[in-house]
Amino acid sequence: MQIVIIGSGNVAYHMAKAFTLKSIPIAQIFGRNEKELSKISEELHIPYSTDHLEEADLYILCVSDHSVEEVSKIITKKNCLVTHTSGSLPKEVLAGEYRKASFYPLQTFSKSKELEYEKIPFFIEAENEEDQKILFDLASKISEKVMESNHEKRKYIHLTAVFACNFVNHLFSRAKEISDSQDIPFDYFLPLIDETVQKIHEIEPKQAQTGPAVRNDVRILQLHEQLLKDESLEIYKTMNHSIQKMYEL
Amino acid sequence: MQIVIIGSGNVAYHMAKAFTLKSIPIAQIFGRNEKELSKISEELHIPYSTDHLEEADLYILCVSDHSVEEVSKIITKKNCLVTHTSGSLPKEVLAGEYRKASFYPLQTFSKSKELEYEKIPFFIEAENEEDQKILFDLASKISEKVMESNHEKRKYIHLTAVFACNFVNHLFSRAKEISDSQDIPFDYFLPLIDETVQKIHEIEPKQAQTGPAVRNDVRILQLHEQLLKDESLEIYKTMNHSIQKMYEL
Repeated sequence: MQIVIIGSGNVAYHMAKAFTLKSIPIAQIFGRNEKELSKISEELHIPYSTDHLEEADLYILCVSDHSVEEVSKIITKKNCLVTHTSGSLPKEVLAGEYRKASFYPLQTFSKSKELEYEKIPFFIEAENEEDQKILFDLASKISEKVMESNHEKRKYIHLTAVFACNFVNHLFSRAKEISDSQDIPFDYFLPLIDETVQKIHEIEPKQAQTGPAVRNDVRILQLHEQLLKDESLEIYKTMNHSIQKMYEL
Repeated sequence: MQIVIIGSGNVAYHMAKAFTLKSIPIAQIFGRNEKELSKISEELHIPYSTDHLEEADLYILCVSDHSVEEVSKIITKKNCLVTHTSGSLPKEVLAGEYRKASFYPLQTFSKSKELEYEKIPFFIEAENEEDQKILFDLASKISEKVMESNHEKRKYIHLTAVFACNFVNHLFSRAKEISDSQDIPFDYFLPLIDETVQKIHEIEPKQAQTGPAVRNDVRILQLHEQLLKDESLEIYKTMNHSIQKMYEL
């Protein structure tokens, strides 16, 4: 099967690298940014082009969400499979007469950061069982965690990630405001944060809950509310209310 | 300096171990639970007792918050320094005629878990500069991160930890509810969560923020609100509001 990767960013680089490490040949890496393409090409020994798109059986679009539709139009071939790598777009956004699919790796990518590809979950959606199998088998060569998912399911995957990553990061921002206000270096909290996350690798988060809300320590809860204001106070109340509801306190 | 540790739980064990690894002799480990004491004693080669408290210059109470006051009464010696290891109690809770202090390691401890003691921050408070120096020097032999802190400051340390650890864990619980509802294994999100936390070891959380709220993606925000209800919807709104306030969106 002839595979072409379209894009020259972080996702394109890591996809190309993950395939190459598993000896799956990539026929071409195609994009606009010649500087980035030539770097990837040199490191991974994959031909690149900025103007002539190679014939392929499978095109993997590794471009930003808002470019997927436009870039998908450059593939004029009909008898081929084209997939995007976005978590938030339906496969129908692809704008050609080829077979369409979604091939979504659940991870944040940066070029400088080494990743364990076998740990990255892949979510697959295709138009028919044959394409589904092609993509499932391909992802399974890279990763131990491959799952079918339609667009509806990907909405919930994205939502889960918003809670577990985006909101978690914002809590770190608000926590840092509090420690900054007292000249306590925020990096003093990193070992405790690391332990908090390590714990949920071993036990369910619901079992791991600690803190004043879950032990219904009214004295501490009231004291903390007096130390807070504005958005941080709102977060404090909302989170404690949610904790106490979850544990029926 | 003659040091005695009082307690037989997780904190007592790790304190005794951290001192022992740095060749700081512990004269005795004292407590009620003979089984636990004898295990610690055997592993670390420290004498233990359940009835005869050894004479010491420094007693370190490693007992739960609600026991500190009561246990502190068993020390009848006057010319000595006594410290608790609690983050939420003032040093004045110690109920004897000795010099009082707080020696607070910011970490969660479990006996089965190896810890890098040099990374654990210690917060120190004492009645006078001499005692402050004794405890500061002692903590500095174990850890690279030692800081003075009074009871007022420890309140904010605790509050920061509530945001950065307790609330973070609760977000994991709510995230898992969402992924469970779609039969998506929550451990699929662990690599992404690990990356999220790894990132704030390198850049400030405020710089690391991603997601629909910070890019003001109104379409996604509305879609997500339709997928949520009750406490999770409240969290979703409160967190997004706070994110948008922080970035002035």
